[in-house]
This record gives sequence, C-alpha cells and structure tokens, in this order.
Amino acid sequence: MTRKAPAAVALVAAIASHAVADPRGRDLGIPFDFGAPGKWNAITDVPGVEVGHTTLIEGDSVRTGVTAILPRGRGDAARRLCFAGHFCLNGAGEMTGLPWVEESGFLDSPVLLTNTNSVGVVRDAVIAYAARRWPPVGDDWTIWSQPVVAETWDGDLSDIYGMHVRAEHAVAAMDRAATGPVAEGNVGGGTGMVCYEFKGGIGTASRRLSEADGGYTLGVLVQANHGLRPQLRIAGLPVGPELASDAKRARDGGSIIIVIATDAPLLPHQLKRLARRAALGLARTGSVAGNDSGDLFIAFSTANPQVVGAPRPVALSMLPNLRMGPLFEATVGATEEAIVNALVAGRTMTGFKGRTVSGLPHDKVREILRRHGRLLD
Amino acid sequence: MTRKAPAAVALVAAIASHAVADPRGRDLGIPFDFGAPGKWNAITDVPGVEVGHTTLIEGDSVRTGVTAILPRGRGDAARRLCFAGHFCLNGAGEMTGLPWVEESGFLDSPVLLTNTNSVGVVRDAVIAYAARRWPPVGDDWTIWSQPVVAETWDGDLSDIYGMHVRAEHAVAAMDRAATGPVAEGNVGGGTGMVCYEFKGGIGTASRRLSEADGGYTLGVLVQANHGLRPQLRIAGLPVGPELASDAKRARDGGSIIIVIATDAPLLPHQLKRLARRAALGLARTGSVAGNDSGDLFIAFSTANPQVVGAPRPVALSMLPNLRMGPLFEATVGATEEAIVNALVAGRTMTGFKGRTVSGLPHDKVREILRRHGRLLD
Amino acid sequence: MTRKAPAAVALVAAIASHAVADPRGRDLGIPFDFGAPGKWNAITDVPGVEVGHTTLIEGDSVRTGVTAILPRGRGDAARRLCFAGHFCLNGAGEMTGLPWVEESGFLDSPVLLTNTNSVGVVRDAVIAYAARRWPPVGDDWTIWSQPVVAETWDGDLSDIYGMHVRAEHAVAAMDRAATGPVAEGNVGGGTGMVCYEFKGGIGTASRRLSEADGGYTLGVLVQANHGLRPQLRIAGLPVGPELASDAKRARDGGSIIIVIATDAPLLPHQLKRLARRAALGLARTGSVAGNDSGDLFIAFSTANPQVVGAPRPVALSMLPNLRMGPLFEATVGATEEAIVNALVAGRTMTGFKGRTVSGLPHDKVREILRRHGRLLD
Amino acid sequence: MTRKAPAAVALVAAIASHAVADPRGRDLGIPFDFGAPGKWNAITDVPGVEVGHTTLIEGDSVRTGVTAILPRGRGDAARRLCFAGHFCLNGAGEMTGLPWVEESGFLDSPVLLTNTNSVGVVRDAVIAYAARRWPPVGDDWTIWSQPVVAETWDGDLSDIYGMHVRAEHAVAAMDRAATGPVAEGNVGGGTGMVCYEFKGGIGTASRRLSEADGGYTLGVLVQANHGLRPQLRIAGLPVGPELASDAKRARDGGSIIIVIATDAPLLPHQLKRLARRAALGLARTGSVAGNDSGDLFIAFSTANPQVVGAPRPVALSMLPNLRMGPLFEATVGATEEAIVNALVAGRTMTGFKGRTVSGLPHDKVREILRRHGRLLD
Repeated sequence: MTRKAPAAVALVAAIASHAVADPRGRDLGIPFDFGAPGKWNAITDVPGVEVGHTTLIEGDSVRTGVTAILPRGRGDAARRLCFAGHFCLNGAGEMTGLPWVEESGFLDSPVLLTNTNSVGVVRDAVIAYAARRWPPVGDDWTIWSQPVVAETWDGDLSDIYGMHVRAEHAVAAMDRAATGPVAEGNVGGGTGMVCYEFKGGIGTASRRLSEADGGYTLGVLVQANHGLRPQLRIAGLPVGPELASDAKRARDGGSIIIVIATDAPLLPHQLKRLARRAALGLARTGSVAGNDSGDLFIAFSTANPQVVGAPRPVALSMLPNLRMGPLFEATVGATEEAIVNALVAGRTMTGFKGRTVSGLPHDKVREILRRHGRLLD
Repeated sequence: MTRKAPAAVALVAAIASHAVADPRGRDLGIPFDFGAPGKWNAITDVPGVEVGHTTLIEGDSVRTGVTAILPRGRGDAARRLCFAGHFCLNGAGEMTGLPWVEESGFLDSPVLLTNTNSVGVVRDAVIAYAARRWPPVGDDWTIWSQPVVAETWDGDLSDIYGMHVRAEHAVAAMDRAATGPVAEGNVGGGTGMVCYEFKGGIGTASRRLSEADGGYTLGVLVQANHGLRPQLRIAGLPVGPELASDAKRARDGGSIIIVIATDAPLLPHQLKRLARRAALGLARTGSVAGNDSGDLFIAFSTANPQVVGAPRPVALSMLPNLRMGPLFEATVGATEEAIVNALVAGRTMTGFKGRTVSGLPHDKVREILRRHGRLLD
Repeated sequence: MTRKAPAAVALVAAIASHAVADPRGRDLGIPFDFGAPGKWNAITDVPGVEVGHTTLIEGDSVRTGVTAILPRGRGDAARRLCFAGHFCLNGAGEMTGLPWVEESGFLDSPVLLTNTNSVGVVRDAVIAYAARRWPPVGDDWTIWSQPVVAETWDGDLSDIYGMHVRAEHAVAAMDRAATGPVAEGNVGGGTGMVCYEFKGGIGTASRRLSEADGGYTLGVLVQANHGLRPQLRIAGLPVGPELASDAKRARDGGSIIIVIATDAPLLPHQLKRLARRAALGLARTGSVAGNDSGDLFIAFSTANPQVVGAPRPVALSMLPNLRMGPLFEATVGATEEAIVNALVAGRTMTGFKGRTVSGLPHDKVREILRRHGRLLD
Repeated sequence: MTRKAPAAVALVAAIASHAVADPRGRDLGIPFDFGAPGKWNAITDVPGVEVGHTTLIEGDSVRTGVTAILPRGRGDAARRLCFAGHFCLNGAGEMTGLPWVEESGFLDSPVLLTNTNSVGVVRDAVIAYAARRWPPVGDDWTIWSQPVVAETWDGDLSDIYGMHVRAEHAVAAMDRAATGPVAEGNVGGGTGMVCYEFKGGIGTASRRLSEADGGYTLGVLVQANHGLRPQLRIAGLPVGPELASDAKRARDGGSIIIVIATDAPLLPHQLKRLARRAALGLARTGSVAGNDSGDLFIAFSTANPQVVGAPRPVALSMLPNLRMGPLFEATVGATEEAIVNALVAGRTMTGFKGRTVSGLPHDKVREILRRHGRLLD
C-alpha cells in the first residue's frame, strides 16, 4: 500500500491524456440509431449534469483514477435529490448505495466511478466531503451519507493492489466537475480499462428528443471494461472477428458501469425501465455479459428536484408511461454510442508488468464499415 | 367439473353467513396497537374503496367464493389507475397481474380473491367484464387487461377440484361491491379458509392517522388461510399453545393474501414499502410464513387518479418518505388486527369429506387475555 | 363470448399451416453467431423437451391458439420438477406461476403460451388435467397447481374478446406434444402474432456446446409479437428501415415470451442469469422493449430431476459459474435466431376486421444481406 | 478527521467491556420460542463460524468498532465459498457486495459490521488483507474482492464524522475471530448503537434442530440500532410502553443488520427465504422498520464448501423445500432472541457531546414479565 507519486503529477497527466478535438464515433463515419445527439453528445447535455475526472498515470504501473458525475452540479443545488432507479445485468461488481436508491427512490449523492479496490476510499471520501461542505445544522442529517460508487477492474494495466487512489483524488474529481464536452477514453475511472480487448474507458453520448416527444435530453456515460474481441459489433457488423486478435484474455473478466441521466420527469420505477434498456444498447455492441462482468446501470432524472425532510406532500410531474418509447430508444442508442465512443477514444497504453493494450484501429474499422456499405461519409 | 347447484343458492348463503353485529376483535377486549381505526374499521374506510363477496356454500362439499376489492368503486372512476406496489413474503401462491404492477407502477383493475384452482376463470371474467362495460373506442385498449387475482387453498373444506367458481360469480362479487361495513369470516374468497387451524377467511381493519400526521386513512383486507395452531399469538400472548389442539394439519400449507389501501399520496416504490410492512403485522400473529404458504401482499393508493394515455406530463402529489412512519405503523397494526378479525369472525364449518374446522373459541381467548392482564374491558 | 366453430376444424388447420420443409433463417443464408445448433435447431434438441400446438383458425376472425412446452415430456417424468428462473424485461404481460418459481426454484408444470385473454382458461385447464392424470394419493397434493401460462396479444388479427380458447385446446396442445422438429410461425399460441409489423409467431433455435464446454444443449422457443418495423435488424443490418413499411402500428404494443431450456446442471439463480441474457438476443434483432410489451422470459434445466416431498437432503450437480460463458453465448445466439425463425416462418395472414399482416419477404431480405456482404451461400 | 488515540487502547477496552458471565435474555427468565439453542446460544454454534470484535472506546467521543463474522474461520477453509442470500426490509443502509451475492449465489468473504461512515475503509481493508494472505498465483484472482460490509449509525454516541475506524481495526477484528461464546452489547460494530432508545449493539442466539428435523444448527448475529421505545415488545408484551421513556429520539433513525448462519445444505434461493424470515423475528420485538432504518439481512450456509474455478460440475446436497419449516422457525426465534440479547447486554454509555443512553433495566423487565404471568423462573 505504498504511495508512489504525488497526486499533482496525475492531475497534469489528466489534462494531457485527451484532446477534445480527437475524433469520436460519428467523426469516423459510424452510423448510430435512434435520433440526434445534444450539443456535446455527452451526458452533460442534460442541464445541470457535470462530470469531472482525476486521472492517475504514474511511473510504470499506476493507470487508474476517479470519475465523478454530479447530477445537479457542484453548487448548492447538489443538495437536492434526484429520482433514480437501477438495474443489474450481471453482478460481478460493486455499486454502493443501491439499497437506499431502491428504498427511497432517490439518488442523493454524486455517482463516482473508480477501480475495484478503491470503492471504499472513494465512498468514505464523499461522505466526509459532504460533511465539510454542508455541516449538519443541529441534529439534521448530512446528505450524501449512502454514496453511489461503482467500479470496474483495471488490474491488467494498473497495480490495483497498490491502492493508489486516495480520498483527495475523489474530492478533486468532484471539485473539477464541469458541464461541456467530456473527456473520454483513458481518463478518470476509465484510465486503465480494457473493452473487447481494445483500450476502453470512459465514453459518453446523448440524444435530444423532438419537441413532439417532449424535447427532453437523455445522456449516457459508461466506464467500459468488458467483452471479448470476437464479440465486438460496431454498427451491427462483426468488427471484432474481422480484426485480427492481437490480445487474448483468458475470460470475459471485464465489466461496464452505465450511468443514464435525463431531464424528463420520470419516477423511480420509470427510471428502472431506462436502466434495463441500457442492457439492450450494450447487447448491440456484442456483449453477452460474461460471468465475471459487473454490469451495473443507474438512471436518474434531474426533473422534480426534491429536498430532504419536506413536511408535507410535494407536487411532482410525471411523464406518462405511454410517452416513454422515445426515451427507451434514446437509452439504447446513446448507450451503444457511448461504448463505441469509449473504444474510439481509447489510446494504446502500456502499464503494469509491461502489459500493452492497443487502441481500436480507426482506419481498419472504417474499412470494414465501408466494405459492408455501412460507412457514413 | 360438474356444476352442482345454481349460483342463486350461493348468493343467498352469502347474506346468511354473517351478521354484521357479530363481535369483532375489539369487541372481545383484545388490545391492538398503532392508533385508532376508521369508522368501519375496514378497508372501506378509505374513500372510494368498495368490497363485494360471492359466497358459495352448496351441499356437502362446496365451500368457496370470490371477494372483489374495487379501489375506486363500481362507477366510471374505476377506469382511473391507482399507483400500487407488491411484496411476496413466500411465493407458494398466485397473484396474477404482478408484472404490469411492477412495470407500470399501476393497479389498473380490481383485486379479486378466490380459491387456488379458480384464479383463471376469475381472471378471464374480469377482462370480459371490463370489455362489456367499457368497449374499446376505435383501437383504444380496454383497461383491466392484466387483472390482479389472488388465491389461497380451500381444499380441506371444499371440493376444490370440482371447479365450482364460474365467471358469473366473479362478476357478481364486483357488481355487489359497496362501501360500508365488510362481512368477515366465512364469506367470499374466504369461505372455506383455515387459519392457525381455526376457521379463518376474510378479515379487515383500518387506521385513521391524526391530522398532524396528514389525516390519511389506511385499510387492510386479508384472506387468511395460514399458520399452525401452536404458532398463534394474540396481543402478543401464546394463545395457540394455551388452547388445546383439536385439529392438526400435516404441515403449514396455508397462505394469506393481504391487500392494503390508502388515500395517502404514495408513489409505487413507497407502496412497496407498505406491502413489506404487512409481513411485520403477520408476524405479530405468530406466522413464520411456512414453505407451502402463498403470502402475497399488494398495496395501492387512491390518491393521484391517473388516466391511461395522457398525452403529456401529469401533476402528482407525493408524501415525503420521512412522513411515512405513521403509515408503516398503521400497516402493521391494521394487518395484525385484520387477521385477528378473520379468526374472530370465522365460524365452525363442516365441508368436503365431512371435515370440520372449529371457530376460535371467543370465551377461552378472553380468559387467556384476562389471565395475562391484557384484556380490555 | 359465443363460440363459433368446433375445435376439430382448428386442429386440422394446425397441420396445414406449416410444412416442416419450409425454409428457416439459416436456409435463407442468414448468418448467426455463437456456435452450432442441435439436430433440429429447436428447443426439442434438449433431451426430454416436447412441444405441442393447438392452432385455431376459424372463419374470418379467429386466429389464435395454444403452445405447450413440456420440460420432461408427457410421461410420468413430467411429475419431476425442473430448476427454473425468470426475468422480466418489460412487464406489460402475464406469466402466471412466477411467485412459486421464484420461491421454490422449481418449474413444476409445463409452460403454455396463448393469447392475452385466454391465460385464465388455460391455467385452470392445466390444473384440472394434472388432477385427472395423477389423482392425489391420500392428502398428497397434486402437482401442477401453480401453472406457468404466458401470453401475447393477438387482437389485431383475432377476435380476442371472443374468448375462443377453451380448456380442451390447452389439453390438446399438451397431449400432442412431441420431440423432433417444431412447427413455427402461424401456429399454436403464435397463430395471430405480429413481429416488427411482419407476421410473427412461434420460432425456435438451439445451440450444442462443444465437448470441451460440457457438450450441453440449450434451446429457445419464442412467441414473437413485438417491435416496430424500423427497429428490425437481421444479422446486425438495418433490414427494417430498408424494407418499405407497408404496415404501421400506432405504437409498440407487442410482446415476446422467451422460453429457454437446457440440460446443463444449473441452479435457479444460474437459470435467472440465462433468462436475463435472452434480453441481449432480443436486442440484436432491434427491439427496445416498448412500453406496452410483455417481455417475460423463463429458463429451466432438465438436469437434477427432483421429486416433491423428498424426506432428506438430495444430491445435485451444479455447473460452476465460471463455466457458464458458453451457455450465455448460446442463449444470446439461439434467442436471436429463434426470433428470426419466427419471422421467416410467418406467412401473410388476413383475419379480424379484414386486417392483413404480411410475411417477411424472403427474397428482399436476402438481397439486403447480399448487398451488405453478409449473405451466406 | 484527526485520529485521537492509538488503537491499542481500544483493544484493551474491548476486553474490559463485557464479561461473558453477564446475564443474557434466558438468564433473566424471558421465554423464547421455536426450539432450543445450541451450546453457546450464539452464531458460533454453527461449526466453523468465528466472530471477532474490535471495540473503539476512546476519550469522550469515540464509541465505535468493527465486528467480523468469518463463515469458515480464519484458516485456509476461508477461501471456500458459502452459498448465500439476502433480503432488504428497509434500505436506509449499506451492505456492500450484494450484487455478487445475488448473481453468483455465493458469499466469498467474511461479513464485517461497522458504523455508517467507515464502510469504505473496512471494505478496502478486507481486499488488501486477502491479497496479503493469499497472493494471486499467476493471473488467478484473489478471492474476497467484493467484500460484504454493513453498517448502522452510531452518530448519537460517537463522533462518526471523525472517521476513527482504520484498516488495522478491521484486520484486528478478523484476526481475533474465534469460536465459542460471543461478547454482546457495547462491543465491536455495536459499541455505540442504540436499540428501542435503550443501549443496543451486538446480540446473538442460535437454535439446534432435532435429529428428526435434520439436526442442523442455525445461528443469528445482529447489530441492533433500531426502534422507538414505545414499540418495544419482549415476549410479546408491551415492555416499551410500560417503561417510562427517559430518552426520546426525534424519529426512528436506527437500523439493524442481521446475519444468519446455518450448516443445513441450502441453496442460494433457499437462503433468501431464511433472510426474509429475519423480518418476522424483528417484528416480534416491535419494530415497524422505520423510514431511516437500514434493515439488511444476509444468510449463508456452511454446507457445500465450494472452490472458485472448479473445471466441471460439482456435487452438492440440497435440503428439500418441504423440510425447511423448522429452519424458518429457528430463524424467527433466534432473531427475536438475538435482539433481546443485544438489549440485555447493552450497558449505559455516555459518549459524544455528553449524551447518555441507558441500558435496559433488567429488574423492571422481569417485573413486567412476572406481572403478566410470562416470567420463567
């Protein structure tokens, strides 16, 4: 549990690891379904949602980090609850805080993503952070006491048992959260992640519904660390099998965390419906949700901001179930695209024990799509 | 599957089987917790809720029936949906319609209770009934297409494989539904039921919250067919062991269906919370939820009447979670009392194969409570 | 609720409606993933599993039926239980018997598929059938007392409120169950079903695992009635959008029931894992699981035949979780293929109110696949 | 987040805080139901199960700790998995590791109990501890990578935001685990807990089944921090209301964690059945599971020791469902008794901000039971 390098180095690394001008899935001519994205084609298209990364790339063997998604940003609006719901497609992973999400119907904290062995330190850090920012008044309880922290395993590229993530890294990810474009690939919690045996990590996408469908925005952010090469499908095509396999994992030991945000006024049971649809988007990229995969999804709505402890019934708005179809399509579409974006943004990385994982070869992918008459130009 | 007697006989039987002036649990001096009941100490204290029974007592071997709970009565308000949630404590039973309750958050039909082998005929009858009453306009869907029908096993006292319940019995129970006092014991779906090896059946109770707690009403109706004699507790006392066992069932093969109604504005996930509390009320009467027991509970709220197919977001009211405590207490208290009321109302019955099940001996129960200093006079 | 024609007509219709020599998905050159099928590429490749259909095609407006899947065939082995598990992707549908499947871990009856309004009559018929075949000895309980009956809505092509399915139709489907090839398309419960706005219905497929993976067989049978035309994907290609839409449903009101059988020794919680993977196979055909869709899946294992009432611990076999990967792939692959097979087998049908639904145009599908370099020849 | 005292002080405190000769519920003459306890009337009666506490009592304001339950003790048997299942009665709490318990059916780590704000540090400590003890061979995964750590809130008596629990405290609890009598009350994770507004904390009890019922042992351990004074029932009597309330909490903000162990050969879905029954035992002490209560229960079986990564099907033993009744009763009885034992063992404590919580007055409780004819002498 030695700590090898000052966090400052990591923070610089974060900035260097990803240029926003890098191409994304659409830039490569990959077609995606189910409507048009929002301004940034990111979870941050949902008004209020902010994302921050702490990326830890240190020496030969530290390739990890923390990503924070703040449903209502960093200001005092962060104390207001969001309705939320979750779904577990395959449970070989951790997402803390779920009993309270299920019981209360609320997400009352940010969602943080990190590596498997650092869930605990990040979780406790969120509690301490909230207590410092909003000290209890009298015996009133501090919010953020059951934080949602999820993980995937980066032990291939990072010295995961070195326990390199510290409380201040979690705090930094929250403090640096912002709206606007979201860095993807080898950043934040996704720094050391591997997806379909290519370099994976963070990816995001969004959909903006037509005014006739309510004009809502739905955004998805994934930490993609799942899948075997032969399973990979892009635009429905067998891209994985057609790319020679230069890396072979013994088994499908990866995982994917999917976070869905929307400003549509959905109740908790309706948000579970969105969370289940994330599985359908994942399936379109080829995954069968392997035995060792922690495929845990959470959806929240920024509509209906609630306060804890309201003394009497509160007024809410609810989208009727029959109007949810476009949001189902948006979830499937944005999830598929966010995963592809994570692959497109992933860059070849060498890490722990000298292991190297290659980035997705953009040119070859374009060539496969062109050959099958599926490339958009 | 011969049909032995005209339904008319049964309907007369229903009226004869229970005088509303019969004593209930409180009349015997049994103490109950968690607040005061509503006017009728019945599920019908919740405004709009109506209950109807069809009781089939025919010849030597037919002791069965149907009970219908109409959340919004028999008028056109019945087309409006109720938020609902359920809980299964032990699943050796049937409650149809649960996938849609869970998915949509709504109960869109009445709840009907009958015997195990008649769930199907009752279910289809509800669909046909709704189609006749509210024929589809254009291609609009008829409501009540996934009815909620639950059951317990009355094969000890009734010729359950004779399939004596017919569609018209289900319709009659709905048509006769009314507000006001609810007949208990050997009536409706509870006609042939056995509880803690005494005669059981239908029981009901309610709680009215203080104005400070919102002034809401919560009512419970049970079809009680569960438990072994030695398990029985009344007012926390070991009444079962202290009463000589004159009947011994081979195993705890019974079941209990619990229906909870309230006018508090609760969302589906909050109604699940009520449904889980029904298990706590059941436990206070001594049950351990035996292996063969179908212990299925459903809770609905008459607040927030919804229509199917609203074109845009609808306004709702929600009771904050922190205000739910009195409703939890009300659920536990009314469930315990409804079960005791079913036992108190049960009358000794002889049925199939000449089997006899005794009613709870009121005097002996009073004597036990008096001896332990727990009788209210 | 008039009954228009003798069942005999329907039974003849069943035989005429489908020639086994008709082409299936593979015959058209459509590529499928995740291994090779068993002998019949059907759920009946799992030893012991038998399937029977009753098809009701009568006059202008009856287009419905019943399909029965018998996990251990029609003989006395049918009294032995199967471990089972289920998953609900979207709950706008009915599958009776789930509380007991969830609680006990067992499927103790056949699985029957029919139309929405006939679930009840079929359910009660299964109970009565079992009681006739295996009358209780002493007070021993008859098996099959919580049957699993599921449905999809055929009200577009059939007079669903006419309640044309009767108990004898359910019995006939069970009695006619057999191993060997399974008729697909407009047969049994699938007779009047519509899938991606083409004629759908029953479809099936299977996978045989390599000896290294255990040599197990996994089969899938679907009753496919889901999806909108523009969503349809075949072999990952946008076949739906490329086929001109000649039918337009107002909304995604369909449903799909998926039944998964295997001889791999899986426990109930492992069978739930298979059931969840069916959603991934469904997604590969384009569905987003619409609001009105009853997408209910059940998986069972024929290994570990159990008897009710064993007096002491019984010996079981369990496949380790880490060995389940090939079964996950088989489930995804066979589900995708079974849905395509339902579409390929569906034949243009005219029914209720003169409505016509077209069968999938085989030649056009082949042309689309050829154009995209995905046709196998 | 200052750390005020060396852990050594705390460890001494642990030994001093509880004499095993202190009276327990039965010693006071309180009657309990459902059979006889094992040798120590503790969870450690289940062969192999070991329990260890780290108690942190430091200065004026630290009253917290960690309790570890090791299903197969501290030796190499600890690497073998246990089947497990869980139930959440009310989710205002945390129990990490549940997605993997649900998915895999296995508990693959010890269960640790601590305060709300220390779940993270304890969780990561378990991972690091396992990695040190059993370093991965080749790329084989270390076990204990999704530890089960649960919590209740001790912020009334302890400076919970001081984050006083450190990794070494979790390790010490595991290292000190032993079979034999289990210290109760103000120890380990229960040090600062409050139950029905009396001093609560750790409690345990067990049941030994008759040989006719299989001769199995079932043990329960609780960390009891729940309930309001007026709700308290002991032996079914209203002990809470009859004791003058000298402490009044604003709301039912407590929680209870319940751990159930057995050597009966139960599968995961059967262990969920036990976990649900814990709610019934809790109900018998008067709780209604308040809104803020984290009532999370987990059950495991030490039968069928499994290894990760077995290459082919493994042989198991399963108790038939119909034989589970005595285990249901044992769960209800031992849970009720363990909670009462926690109350009986709790000692008056003064802590954070000078607050004092009184221990249950043994004499007054005996007097109430005697008055109601329920005291055993």
